[in-house]
Amino acid sequence: MIRVGIIGATGYAGGELVRLLMNHKEAEIKWYGSRSYIDKKYYEVYQNFFQIVDDVCMDDNMEALANEVDVIFTATPQGLCASLVNEDILNKVKIVDLSADFRIKDVATYEKWYGIEHKSPQFIEEAVYGLCEINREDIKKARLIANPGCYPTCSTLSIYPLAKEGLIDMNTVIIDAKSGTSGAGRGAKVDNLYCEVNENIKAYGVASHRHTPEIEEQLSYASGEQVLLNFTPHLVPMNRGILITAYATLKKDVTYEEVKAVYDKYYANEKFVRVLDKDVCPQTKWVEGSNYVDVNFKIDPRTKRIIMMGAMDNLVKGAAGQAVQNMNLMFGLKESEGLELVPMFP
Amino acid sequence: MIRVGIIGATGYAGGELVRLLMNHKEAEIKWYGSRSYIDKKYYEVYQNFFQIVDDVCMDDNMEALANEVDVIFTATPQGLCASLVNEDILNKVKIVDLSADFRIKDVATYEKWYGIEHKSPQFIEEAVYGLCEINREDIKKARLIANPGCYPTCSTLSIYPLAKEGLIDMNTVIIDAKSGTSGAGRGAKVDNLYCEVNENIKAYGVASHRHTPEIEEQLSYASGEQVLLNFTPHLVPMNRGILITAYATLKKDVTYEEVKAVYDKYYANEKFVRVLDKDVCPQTKWVEGSNYVDVNFKIDPRTKRIIMMGAMDNLVKGAAGQAVQNMNLMFGLKESEGLELVPMFP
Amino acid sequence: MIRVGIIGATGYAGGELVRLLMNHKEAEIKWYGSRSYIDKKYYEVYQNFFQIVDDVCMDDNMEALANEVDVIFTATPQGLCASLVNEDILNKVKIVDLSADFRIKDVATYEKWYGIEHKSPQFIEEAVYGLCEINREDIKKARLIANPGCYPTCSTLSIYPLAKEGLIDMNTVIIDAKSGTSGAGRGAKVDNLYCEVNENIKAYGVASHRHTPEIEEQLSYASGEQVLLNFTPHLVPMNRGILITAYATLKKDVTYEEVKAVYDKYYANEKFVRVLDKDVCPQTKWVEGSNYVDVNFKIDPRTKRIIMMGAMDNLVKGAAGQAVQNMNLMFGLKESEGLELVPMFP
Amino acid sequence: MIRVGIIGATGYAGGELVRLLMNHKEAEIKWYGSRSYIDKKYYEVYQNFFQIVDDVCMDDNMEALANEVDVIFTATPQGLCASLVNEDILNKVKIVDLSADFRIKDVATYEKWYGIEHKSPQFIEEAVYGLCEINREDIKKARLIANPGCYPTCSTLSIYPLAKEGLIDMNTVIIDAKSGTSGAGRGAKVDNLYCEVNENIKAYGVASHRHTPEIEEQLSYASGEQVLLNFTPHLVPMNRGILITAYATLKKDVTYEEVKAVYDKYYANEKFVRVLDKDVCPQTKWVEGSNYVDVNFKIDPRTKRIIMMGAMDNLVKGAAGQAVQNMNLMFGLKESEGLELVPMFP
Repeated sequence: MIRVGIIGATGYAGGELVRLLMNHKEAEIKWYGSRSYIDKKYYEVYQNFFQIVDDVCMDDNMEALANEVDVIFTATPQGLCASLVNEDILNKVKIVDLSADFRIKDVATYEKWYGIEHKSPQFIEEAVYGLCEINREDIKKARLIANPGCYPTCSTLSIYPLAKEGLIDMNTVIIDAKSGTSGAGRGAKVDNLYCEVNENIKAYGVASHRHTPEIEEQLSYASGEQVLLNFTPHLVPMNRGILITAYATLKKDVTYEEVKAVYDKYYANEKFVRVLDKDVCPQTKWVEGSNYVDVNFKIDPRTKRIIMMGAMDNLVKGAAGQAVQNMNLMFGLKESEGLELVPMFP
Repeated sequence: MIRVGIIGATGYAGGELVRLLMNHKEAEIKWYGSRSYIDKKYYEVYQNFFQIVDDVCMDDNMEALANEVDVIFTATPQGLCASLVNEDILNKVKIVDLSADFRIKDVATYEKWYGIEHKSPQFIEEAVYGLCEINREDIKKARLIANPGCYPTCSTLSIYPLAKEGLIDMNTVIIDAKSGTSGAGRGAKVDNLYCEVNENIKAYGVASHRHTPEIEEQLSYASGEQVLLNFTPHLVPMNRGILITAYATLKKDVTYEEVKAVYDKYYANEKFVRVLDKDVCPQTKWVEGSNYVDVNFKIDPRTKRIIMMGAMDNLVKGAAGQAVQNMNLMFGLKESEGLELVPMFP
Repeated sequence: MIRVGIIGATGYAGGELVRLLMNHKEAEIKWYGSRSYIDKKYYEVYQNFFQIVDDVCMDDNMEALANEVDVIFTATPQGLCASLVNEDILNKVKIVDLSADFRIKDVATYEKWYGIEHKSPQFIEEAVYGLCEINREDIKKARLIANPGCYPTCSTLSIYPLAKEGLIDMNTVIIDAKSGTSGAGRGAKVDNLYCEVNENIKAYGVASHRHTPEIEEQLSYASGEQVLLNFTPHLVPMNRGILITAYATLKKDVTYEEVKAVYDKYYANEKFVRVLDKDVCPQTKWVEGSNYVDVNFKIDPRTKRIIMMGAMDNLVKGAAGQAVQNMNLMFGLKESEGLELVPMFP
Repeated sequence: MIRVGIIGATGYAGGELVRLLMNHKEAEIKWYGSRSYIDKKYYEVYQNFFQIVDDVCMDDNMEALANEVDVIFTATPQGLCASLVNEDILNKVKIVDLSADFRIKDVATYEKWYGIEHKSPQFIEEAVYGLCEINREDIKKARLIANPGCYPTCSTLSIYPLAKEGLIDMNTVIIDAKSGTSGAGRGAKVDNLYCEVNENIKAYGVASHRHTPEIEEQLSYASGEQVLLNFTPHLVPMNRGILITAYATLKKDVTYEEVKAVYDKYYANEKFVRVLDKDVCPQTKWVEGSNYVDVNFKIDPRTKRIIMMGAMDNLVKGAAGQAVQNMNLMFGLKESEGLELVPMFP
C-alpha cells in the first residue's frame, strides 16, 4: 500500500485528490496538509467527506512528511514546492508537484512569467513533465514530477498530433480557452463570488496568462521548432470543465480521414484521450468527474485552417486525476487505477 | 455475474443506472432498452459513455428480456411496468420498477393521484417498497421491488425516526421540497428549457403532487396512524439534488441530545444515511453523485416545532442508486457494491 | 430635483439604488459613499456604470452629507445608521435606512437577535416601517424610514390579507423562504464563492434568522395578536429573487373565490403587488429587475391548510426599489416614479 | 404615436421587443402576432407582462397588419419575412426584419448558407443593413431594415475600426464567440434543456455557422477587400450575453494609444458603444439588459497580433434593442428613445 501525503489538501485540487484516492486500491492518504486548517477535521472543511475521512489537517511540513509517506502531492501556490524540496527529501519520497514550479525548463522564463524567484532551480532539469500520454516512459523513472497545468494539458493534447506530424503552421496557432470557476481556487475574492461569475463570461490574462509559455514549450518539443502562440482563457459560469478551441493554418490540403488517422496514431490506444466521431464537438459535461480528454477537429477548406477542440475536467485530468495517473506510473501500478471514473451526466 | 436489462435506458435515471453499473463488479448490462432510440448506439445518446459502452439500444420487450437477464430495471413512465409484467416474467426474473406503479398499496389512491388505470393490481401486495434502510429484510426476499420516488426517499428518511418514536404530532407535518431539474426528465418541454429554469425558482404541483400519498403511506406505517400532510415541491436551477425541509410540532419538550439519539438509533449503522453534526445543515452539493442522504434537525423552542432537513442526489439515492442497492440486497451481494461513490465537490 | 446621498453605495443594494435612480426624473445622486473605495471612480467598482456615472466614491460622512442633500439612503451593515443619526441630521434631511436598525420597535428584541447595542433607540418610535402598501400614509409624513428587510417584505405581503382578515390561525404560520445569492452581499467569503453556491441548495439560519422577529412583528400588527412563527431561509443558485412558500391552517372552510376576494381587497389597486390568476404559481424570473411582488395561494382541503406564495426581486422591492418607493412617498412624488421597470425575461 | 405590429411576438426576441417598447414614449404596440398562441392572452405566454399587457395574440397576417400600424417587426424564422413582404406592404409600412432574410446582398450566398430559396430577392438591394453605428444615414431613409444578427453585431462592431483603418491583415481574422442560451430560441429541443446546457460548454456550427458570411460581408465593406474568416460560436450556460474574442495579425507595429485613438475615432460619440479603459476586459454582465456593446483590445507584441473583445446582450443590442434603435432612426425620433436602460448587475 502506497502511503500518500498531500500538502495543500484543502484547496479544490487537494479535495479532488482525496476524492480520487478514496477509491484507489493501492494508495492510502496518511497526511492531510493544510496550513489554514491545522487540527481541524478534514471533513469539516469538505463535508462531502463526512464519515469517509476522519483525519485532522496537519501542518505543511515536507521534511517530516518525507519520513512517513512514499509520495507527496503538493497542491499549493507557485513557489512553495520549490522552496521546500531538497535532495534529502527526494531520496526518501517521490513528489508530484501540482504547481508550476518545475514545468518550465528555462528558469528565466519561469521567473519572468510568474514574477517570483525559483528557489531550487537545480531540480528543474531532473523534473519530468507529467503529461502521461506523451512522457510515459520518463515518468516511470522519475523522482519529481511537474504535473501539467490544466490549460496546458487540454491544449497540448488537442494539438499535439498535428504539431508532431508537421501538418500545421506553428506560427499560426491560436488557443481560445474556456474554464469553469474551480480553476480559480477556493480563495475568498470578490471576483469569484457567485454573483460576479454567474450569468457572465469574460476573458482574463489576455496575452499574459502564465500557462502560455508552458504550452509553447510543449508544442515546441512536439514540432521541433520554437513556438509563439496566442492563448486567451475565459471564465465560464460552471464549476468544472475546460474547453479549448484552437486554430491553425494547415500546411497542405488534407482530408478528414488523413487527420483522423494522425489523431488515432497517437491516441487510439490511449484510454484517457478519446477522439470523438466525425462532426461531434467535445462538451465539458461529457467528461465531468472523469479523467478523460475528448478531442476532435474540423477542417475549414474556405480558410485552409483547422479547428482543434478539446474538453476535460480541469480538476481531474487537469490536476488531481493526472497526478494520480503519474503516481500510478511512477510506482508501476496499473495506469488507470483509481481513475476508472465514468463521466457524470447530467 | 448478474445479467441486467434496463427498460428506459435513455432517460436521466436510465443513464445514471448505466453509470453506476459500469463500476459494479457483479453485474453486467445486457440490454439497453429505449423505444425512442432503437438501433442507435447508446453512446450516441449519452456521449459520456463513448468508448465505454458500445451496445445499441433495443426495443422495450419485457417478455424477450426475461429470458436473457436476471434482473430488469424499468426506468419508464408510470403505467408501463404494470402493463408489461406478468406471473411468467416474475418467475424468470427479478424486477426493480423505478416508476410509481407498485409503490402505493391502495390501488384506488394510485388511480386517483396518477389518473390512470392500474393494469396489474394483483402484484401490488407482493411488491416490496424498496426503501432499503427501512425494508431491508423484505427486499432480500422480493421478486418485485417498487423503487421509491425521489421526494419520498428523502422525505421519509428525514422524518422516519421521529415518526416511528412518536416524538412529533403527525397531523402537523409539512414538507417543503426543492429539486434540481433532472427530476423533470429529458423530455423536450418549454418549461424545462435552460432559459426558463435558470435564474428562477417556483413551486409546482402545490397540494396536488403525486408523491404526496406515497410519503403519507410510508409515514403512516412508521407512526402507526393515518397521516395527511402538506408536500410542496420546488424547481431549483441546478441539475441534481433534492433538499427537503420538514416541519412538525413536537409532542413534548426534548433536548438536542435526545433527538440525536433517536436519529442515531436508526441510522448509526446505516452507511448511506449520514446524521450530520450539530448545527450543520445538509447541502445537496455534499452528496452529489453519491448514494448518501444527509439528514439533520433543529429544535425551535419558541414554536415547539422541530425542523428536519435531508439532502440527497435525486438520480442516485433518489433513483438509480437505490435501485442498485435493492438489486444488491435481492441477490445477496454486498449492499454497497457499485455504490462506494465519494460525493463530488465542487 | 431631489438631491440624493447614498451611504454604502458599493454594496449590491447600493448599486441597485444607483441603477434605479439613473432613470428617476426627479432625483439626482450627489454623493456615492463607500468607505472601501474612497476616491475611486464609482464605475470602476461597477463597470456597468461606465460612461453613465462619472463620480468618485466619498467617505461615509453623514454630518457633511446632511448639508448637501435632501435624502440619505443608508445601505450599510446593521448598527451603522443608528450610530450616525441624530436630531440635527434629521432636521436637515430625510433618511431611508436599508439596514435593520429601525425596523423593530422593541429595542430588546433588536439587541437580542442582532447581538449589538442600539446606539439611538430614541428614534425607534418615530421611525416608520416602510412597507409602502401597508403604511403609505405614515410614510408620507416620516423623516426616518426603516426600509423593510427582503424576506419580511415578501413574507408580509404574501400573508397580510389573510392575517388581517382573520382567516388563518396565526399560531400555525410557517414560512419557507428561498433567496438568490445577492442577498448575502458582496463580501469576499468562501461560502459565497461561485463553486460553493452553484449546483447547491441549503437552509441556513434555521430557527435563528434575524428576519424572524421582523416578520412576526408585522404579522402581529396585521392580526392583532402576538405571533410566533417558523421562518427558514434557503440559499439558491441564482443572483436575484426571493420566493416564499408559507403555510397556515385555515380557521374555517373557505372557497377559492372568497380568499381571492380578500387578496383583491388589499391589492387590487396596488400597482406593485400582483395577485396572479388561479393556479399560477409565482416565479422569481417573472419579477426580475422590477419592483413587483407576485402573490398567489392554494387551498388544500385535505389538510385544511392554505399555501401562500410570493415572489419578488430581493434587490428591487426587497431593497432599493422599495427604498425609492418610500422616497417618492416622502417627497410627494408619483409613487412609481423611477420604478416603471418591466421584468426582464429570460 | 407610432403604431407597432410584431410578427413573432412570443419568441425570446419578440418578448424583449415588448419589454423595450413598454417604456418607449413614442411607440405603442397594436398587434402581438404569434401563430402558436392565437387568441391567448399575451401575458399567459410571458407572465412577466401580467397586468402590463392585456392584449391577446393575433395571427401573423402582414397584409392586414400593414393597414393598422406604422412599423412591423418580424421576429420570425428565416424565410418568413421574405415570403410575406411585397411592394404594396412596403408602401404602407416600414419593416424591421429581425431574421436573416435581407442581410446578405448576394442571394446565392444566402441560399447556400441558409438552405432555402429566397422568396423576394427584389427587395434585397433596397434593404438597409441596420447596424446603426455604421449605416445611420441610410437607415433614416429606409423602408426595409435587415436587423443584424447577434453575433455579427458584436463581431463587426469590435473589429470595424481596425478593418476600416487598415491596421489588421484581414486574411488572419479569427472570431471565437460565446453566447448565452436565449440565442437558441424558445423551441422545445433536448439540446436546450436546462440539464443539457447547465455546467457545460461546447462549440457548435464549427466552420459552418450561418452568421459567417454576414460578418464577412460587413468586414469586406469596412476593409475594402474580400474577407474570409473563421467564426466559431460556443454555447455558454447563461441566459443572456454574447462575448466575442477576435484575433488578427497587425500590419505594422502600433502602440496602445494609436489603436485606442482609432477606436475612439469611430465610437467616442456613440452612446451605445463603450470603449473600455486600458486592460479592462469586457464582461457580458456589465451590459446585461441594456443596448450597450462594450469593446476593448489588447496588443500582443510577442506574436504581433491584436486581440479584440466585445460584449453585449444578445437580446437587446443583438436583436430587439437594435431593432428599436433602427425604428427610432427611421421615424426621426431620438435614437436612444426607449433604450436608456442601465445594465443590471448582478
